Parts: sequence; structure tokens; C-alpha cells
Amino acid sequence: MKRKKAVVLFSGGLDSTTALCWALAEGYDCLAVSFDYGQRHSRENASARAIARRLGVKLYEIKLDFPWFRTSSLVNAGMKLPQVSLSKIGRPGNIPSTYVPGRNLVFAAAGFSLADSAGAQAVVLGPNVVDYSGYPDCRPEFYRALAKAAAYGTRSGADGKKIKLLTPLIKLSKAEIARLGVKLKAPLELTWSCYGGGKKPCGRCDSCKLRAKGFSDAGFADPALAGLEKRAGL
Amino acid sequence: MKRKKAVVLFSGGLDSTTALCWALAEGYDCLAVSFDYGQRHSRENASARAIARRLGVKLYEIKLDFPWFRTSSLVNAGMKLPQVSLSKIGRPGNIPSTYVPGRNLVFAAAGFSLADSAGAQAVVLGPNVVDYSGYPDCRPEFYRALAKAAAYGTRSGADGKKIKLLTPLIKLSKAEIARLGVKLKAPLELTWSCYGGGKKPCGRCDSCKLRAKGFSDAGFADPALAGLEKRAGL
Repeated sequence: MKRKKAVVLFSGGLDSTTALCWALAEGYDCLAVSFDYGQRHSRENASARAIARRLGVKLYEIKLDFPWFRTSSLVNAGMKLPQVSLSKIGRPGNIPSTYVPGRNLVFAAAGFSLADSAGAQAVVLGPNVVDYSGYPDCRPEFYRALAKAAAYGTRSGADGKKIKLLTPLIKLSKAEIARLGVKLKAPLELTWSCYGGGKKPCGRCDSCKLRAKGFSDAGFADPALAGLEKRAGL
Repeated sequence: MKRKKAVVLFSGGLDSTTALCWALAEGYDCLAVSFDYGQRHSRENASARAIARRLGVKLYEIKLDFPWFRTSSLVNAGMKLPQVSLSKIGRPGNIPSTYVPGRNLVFAAAGFSLADSAGAQAVVLGPNVVDYSGYPDCRPEFYRALAKAAAYGTRSGADGKKIKLLTPLIKLSKAEIARLGVKLKAPLELTWSCYGGGKKPCGRCDSCKLRAKGFSDAGFADPALAGLEKRAGL
């Protein structure tokens, strides 16, 4: 029997790496896609490449030059990255300046496009509960509606083989994601989550704070930081 | 009062040029977007540029290098373009090899992304009835579902300012589109519809045949062909 196939939207961060390992554990042959969209932290793409190589997964590295993404502080290095207290991150109605307009819609559309071309049965993404109260494109309602649109707008859907949209992490906390990643033996030491463009995680941006709290709540050290310390001879 | 703003997905062909002129006539300030996605007929992008300049509309020219688009005969020059009789074009259940997987989903997603960034009230596209029985991503159901997804997945939608998705040509025949284009004084002489990569329209591909029938049914000569003949001294 032919193995089932999935397209995984893959940034090289904690969440999408865990989502990729989840899809592999579910028995999918995976095609991963990463995007260089001018993000400050294009460092994450090097992580994506290293992780895909480690896992033996084909990776499509796609460049998206959308000048209008520069209204986001995640892309426009001339803007300040928000540094708010943990309790204020992701509050409903408070969309952070790091929101990239329509980014996840574009990424998911590209994922469906590849799935339709490759005859894949599913598109897998890693949005999760911590993000979705802040970012509109991390909400479950968004992904449900998008899957419906894609069923109409693709060859697979028209042929009655609707492509599934799977968001295995959407209801998990960061701690649960960290635990799942460790359980799945995901190469978390190679992941990159920091929004800053530095050589090591800044520890101050929303993404660093959420990640640190996730590992702390899960009760173990962040393997990526441990790796950095080791390489630095600490 | 601030004028309303629209993003127009704009290929430089008959349909999207008419859609662009329709949006301008409706009073929208327009931002046009064209894509170089490796299509054989990248000649259409030169048309898009010339038309945008003529109309004084800002044009974003976006390059999309999606290797998986090469499963389409519209992108892969090693494949044969279909040449079927007019009566067979666009029959339901018969998706032509020129279908580019998920292309309109990706284009529309990019349009919503720009609209969300620029604070535009609408995204305008030019799919139409002749196409939608053949291409799944030209169906009204697809665009309805997509608008709903975009309302959830954008900042504008989350702020209660849902971006409209307008498809003014979707129920028109090619003859009606040609008539509308002429009525709106669209620069149809600058448009390009042929799927082939030649210097002049091949006259044999689906797109050429549909366009020729449209102008013939509307009862006037195709201004683009007239221009070519004039330039050739005929």
C-alpha cells in the first residue's frame, strides 16, 4: 500500500518541529516547506534545514518577497520588537506588532498548493493556543474555514479527495508542546524560536519568553540553550 | 473623506484588466499585484506593467518560485498545451492540464495579505463563468469560503472590518466581459491572454479560442490583434 503523504509548514521552531515529528509518527511521508519572507530571524531557516536533514525529510525552501510584510516588526528591523510581560502576551484584542499581515493564510495556501500538486492527503501546521488569542491567523475558526475553501479550490477537493488541514498543537500549552517534542524525540536542540536576528536567543522577546516558560513549566532545560552553553564551553 | 481602497489581482489579461477598470470605476483607489510564477506566458507581465502605467495604478510585481507548479502545462514548457474544441473547454469534471495547483488560492491569499497590510476594504479578482466549470479555483463557492477564512485570519477581520472579496466578472460570458471592458474604456489593446510564450497570440490554445469567440460574439474586433496587425504594417 502506498504510504500517506503530508505537507508540513516548517519554520525550524519548537512548534513546527514538534508538528513535523508528530506527522512522521502518524505515518505520513512528509514534504516540509520553509519560507524566507524577510523575517529578522531568518536564522530559523538554517535550523529548518538542519532539522530536515537530520530527519531525512525533503525541504522546499521558498523565498517570498512581499514588500507589504514590512508593516510588521517581525520583518521591519527599523521597528522595535515588543517586550511585554508574559501575562500580557496573547491577550484577545491585542494583536502584537509582530503580526505579519495574512502570513499564515499565505503559508497555508502555499501548503495546499504543494499538497494538490503532490497528491498529499494532509497539510500540517503548528499554530497553538498560546498564540491564537493574540494572532488572528492562529485561531481554530480560521483553519476550519480555510480547509473548506481549499476543498473547493483544489483539484484534489474537486475530485472528492479533500485535503485535511491538521493542527495537532492548537490546543496545547507551550509546556505540553515541549513535552510532546521530547516524547517524540524531536531534535529540539536544533530549533530556533527567537524573533531577534542575533547569534543566540535574546531571551527578551515574546517568543523567547513563551518558550522559556514552556520548558520551565514542563520541568526540563531547553535543549537548544543547553547546546549553546556547551558549544560556548560553559 | 478618505477614498476606499482595493487590491486587484492583475495578470494583464482581458479579464483582470476589465476587473481593474471596474474597480476604478467603482471609486476604489487600486493597488494591483501581478505574479511571475514561471508561467510560459510571462509576456503577460509586460502587459500588466504597461496597463498599470497607463492607468496610473501602483503595481506590485511578485516573483513566486514554487517548483511544484511545474506539474502544470501552463508552467512546464516540456508539457503540451491542450488544444481542444471550444465546446469541450471548461466542461465540469474535466480539469485541464493548464490548471496550476492551488494557484488562485495562493494569489488570493497574497491579495488578502496586502489588503490587510494596506488597510484596503476589498480584494478584486477576475475569475469568470467560462473558466469555473473547468478550473476548481474559479468557482464562486471557493471564493465565498475563502472570504470567510480571510475574515478570521486577518487583522482587519479580527477588528470587525471584514475585507470584501469581489469577483465582478464571475457570472459573465467572455462576450459580456469584452463588452464591459470596451464600455469602461479599458486599454484592451495592451492586454495579453495567450497561454503560449510567443511574440504574438498563437490563436490555438484554450485562452486564445475563448477570447476570440468572446470578441466575435460581442460583435467587434479584438483591439490587441488589431494593434499587432497595425504594428506589422498590415
